[in-house]
Amino acid sequence: MNASADTPASRSLGDVKAILFDTFGTVVDWRGSLIADLGGWAAARGIVGDWAGLVDAWRAAYAPSMDRVRKGELPWTILDDLHRATLERLVGEFGIHGLSDMDMEYINRGWHRLKPWPDAIPGLTRLRTRYVIGPLSNGNVALLVNMAKAAGLPWDMVCSTELFGHYKPDPETYLGAARILGLAPGQVMMAAAHNNDLHAARACGLRTAFFARPTEYGPLQKRDFAADSDWDVVVADIEDMATRLGA
Amino acid sequence: MNASADTPASRSLGDVKAILFDTFGTVVDWRGSLIADLGGWAAARGIVGDWAGLVDAWRAAYAPSMDRVRKGELPWTILDDLHRATLERLVGEFGIHGLSDMDMEYINRGWHRLKPWPDAIPGLTRLRTRYVIGPLSNGNVALLVNMAKAAGLPWDMVCSTELFGHYKPDPETYLGAARILGLAPGQVMMAAAHNNDLHAARACGLRTAFFARPTEYGPLQKRDFAADSDWDVVVADIEDMATRLGA
Repeated sequence: MNASADTPASRSLGDVKAILFDTFGTVVDWRGSLIADLGGWAAARGIVGDWAGLVDAWRAAYAPSMDRVRKGELPWTILDDLHRATLERLVGEFGIHGLSDMDMEYINRGWHRLKPWPDAIPGLTRLRTRYVIGPLSNGNVALLVNMAKAAGLPWDMVCSTELFGHYKPDPETYLGAARILGLAPGQVMMAAAHNNDLHAARACGLRTAFFARPTEYGPLQKRDFAADSDWDVVVADIEDMATRLGA
Repeated sequence: MNASADTPASRSLGDVKAILFDTFGTVVDWRGSLIADLGGWAAARGIVGDWAGLVDAWRAAYAPSMDRVRKGELPWTILDDLHRATLERLVGEFGIHGLSDMDMEYINRGWHRLKPWPDAIPGLTRLRTRYVIGPLSNGNVALLVNMAKAAGLPWDMVCSTELFGHYKPDPETYLGAARILGLAPGQVMMAAAHNNDLHAARACGLRTAFFARPTEYGPLQKRDFAADSDWDVVVADIEDMATRLGA
């Protein structure tokens, strides 16, 4: 890392007023939560299927489905509906039979029931004493509100890219979040376990915080084991981030 | 009141999942808060002025300034900026001199520092155990987020009409709020101390709750001393509303 006076990492963080968190993988453990939730639900009903495989395939379709929206191949479509379309395809591919429409909706809303990583609530609770905190997630508003309520995430506000009609990493999302918060981009910090999210946020003028979630993708994890740039804050997790920021 | 089976008031409220609150006057006491805040601030600085008169004149300009946006005479303008333009005019009219730009900003952000009515936090805290709760206010997002943080309002999410580029009572605001919550209009209840807000919400299919705030406008209050229609819920205040809704 370059420690000279003009690197982003060396600038004061005193101007930061709000911290926005990527959510899937960064704050909540989507893979572990969905495998446990759907596997348990299916077992209780005698519905046989490779739920871990389905969950991994579901997530693998996430970025491509949003890219279809980002490239204009699809009109604006909220994540719940992208998830549902992928799920319809995957239950066929995985040979899972006998699911009613209510079952499909229950499965799809598994994304509303994701569980936080152990450090998330204690860390966020501390950060909230000094900063405005919220998600900046590609999850739609209802998904994020339901998730926060179920998991007890102590957000000051819920910011979804749905509000801007763009998915991350489109710049409209980072700049839109700063705008509705009444802040300059440099007064907003993006926190994520994904380097690509932070590259896009930094390009819009936001400050950046990284911590790794090396088990996010389970055995399939291929990247984001470490910071790949000199982010303003590089820490172990959200509790460590609170300590680093004096909260 | 008509008690026949097909009146709105007689339908079950069991479908309601979210309650959205008008904020200025309904949840927070804008008049008492601003007069105390600005009067105290000015006294400490030896700035002489009729702050109660200015606050009343400021609020009197609220609806007309939003109407200019609603009628297309002004492009979309957030409430902080409408407030500031009105304030610039009023300090001249009230002969208040010697205010710096920082002073003007402090005064304008008095709307971010409004205090809740005594029943608001205990009532909202109870309602939150059974419903998704949030504001649906013409205050911009930053104003509402800062207000909630300063006052401790326990919102699940912050919904501003800014998100829809329309001010209440435009239907886009009520319908937009239901849409981003992933709910049908009939699953959302609008709570307000202003009958006109509820008439507009009901016309969009929302459920309605009324309680009076008879001191909102101080000696200038002319209306909204009582419900003027058969709203789904008519109660004394937000704590009474929690009791009425079993929370």
